[in-house]
Amino acid sequence: MNQMLPETQTRPAVILVETQMGENIGAAARAMANFGLRELRLVAPRDGWPNEKANAMAASARFILDDAYLFDTVEEAVADLALVFATTARERGQMKEVVGPGEAMERIRPHLAGGAKAGILFGRERWGLTSDEVALADAILTLPVDPDHASLNVGQAVIICAYEWARGAGRDIPFTTPENPPARKEDVARLFEHLESELDAANFLKPPEKRPRMVRNLRNIFIRAGLTDQDVRTLRGVVTALVRLGQRN
Amino acid sequence: MNQMLPETQTRPAVILVETQMGENIGAAARAMANFGLRELRLVAPRDGWPNEKANAMAASARFILDDAYLFDTVEEAVADLALVFATTARERGQMKEVVGPGEAMERIRPHLAGGAKAGILFGRERWGLTSDEVALADAILTLPVDPDHASLNVGQAVIICAYEWARGAGRDIPFTTPENPPARKEDVARLFEHLESELDAANFLKPPEKRPRMVRNLRNIFIRAGLTDQDVRTLRGVVTALVRLGQRN
Repeated sequence: MNQMLPETQTRPAVILVETQMGENIGAAARAMANFGLRELRLVAPRDGWPNEKANAMAASARFILDDAYLFDTVEEAVADLALVFATTARERGQMKEVVGPGEAMERIRPHLAGGAKAGILFGRERWGLTSDEVALADAILTLPVDPDHASLNVGQAVIICAYEWARGAGRDIPFTTPENPPARKEDVARLFEHLESELDAANFLKPPEKRPRMVRNLRNIFIRAGLTDQDVRTLRGVVTALVRLGQRN
Repeated sequence: MNQMLPETQTRPAVILVETQMGENIGAAARAMANFGLRELRLVAPRDGWPNEKANAMAASARFILDDAYLFDTVEEAVADLALVFATTARERGQMKEVVGPGEAMERIRPHLAGGAKAGILFGRERWGLTSDEVALADAILTLPVDPDHASLNVGQAVIICAYEWARGAGRDIPFTTPENPPARKEDVARLFEHLESELDAANFLKPPEKRPRMVRNLRNIFIRAGLTDQDVRTLRGVVTALVRLGQRN
């Protein structure tokens, strides 16, 4: 286990959220190795970590498990990333762009070339990702599955994404560097906390049962904007300035 | 079990050659169902047929197993087909064209449309297809695997081919971003005026020579977010709430 996250990436991180079966973590690692992905992040695997069943299934991809990063929450697992996709088989009622795996990989490539980091979230075997977890992502990644047989296991979803990574790698893609560095998720999270704590103080986020949905909708507005570092600083200044304005009046 | 082969096909047959583990046959069936393939042909599965482990793994794709065709040899399994691909991870020293899965599916499509039948051979877990079996095929289908980690299990190889089938079928991603009416520009403009007048009152937009640029950057954040009507109402409420909060303190 090694928790020193890399400064830059040459390939996106695969992030497995509360995976229940060690075999599925091993199968995902093997799929990653097959198609050239390397960075695995695990959020609270059900049976703890390390996991013997995962190791057995990974076979020669064991090195990916040995180098995996472990996190308690999805928020922590994406904190240093600037571009995050959430895989889901169902429409989630969130105003987020939906892309296929080929398109997702095409977007990740120039992003990494520009020095920022990216990752793809894969949910639990039984019920995928929660709405709050999906809300953390910039866009939804979905696969062209038959709606009558949409249930893919984690290893299968990972291998299709990894395959698209390898397929695209053969293509000659003109790398473009983003002109402005996108904000890290932890800075965006701090902006959200700032805004929401002031809105709580202002009694804006009520009644309590509506608060989670209001927060999610509000966050999604800013996530869709693809905030840069400068944008985050600006918006924090805006919140502070508005509160102070009221104090003066 | 039904040995009356179809006169025509709308999708290629998946042909599993002497598969050893029932679980892998079940996983292949599930992968086929996920991406719209239907016709499974089995050549001498090691543990006989039907197979309880295959059924358990197939889950809702069980109907594909129930309709599978059983053969003693690869020659019999491809006898009625006119276009056959052999999947292999290694170069086989045969003067055969080598294509990727996307290319293979592109060739199969017009072929089926012309009334002929096609299939894809997948070899044994341990050692794939024999040279004689590869020789029966029109071309070799290979996947862009990392040469150091080339070993794909049968279910994984099948799912990538099936995924390419669905992708090429132009089957769109199964759902898209929910449609929410975008805000009219005049409502967005009123939001900007509201925000900027409060920020002017707060002395946030200074010095004066920098104001136009600051305003432009701030507006662009919200324009990039693609605000809906609901978003505009929410954000106006946010501005009002923050100013009022300060007034109360």
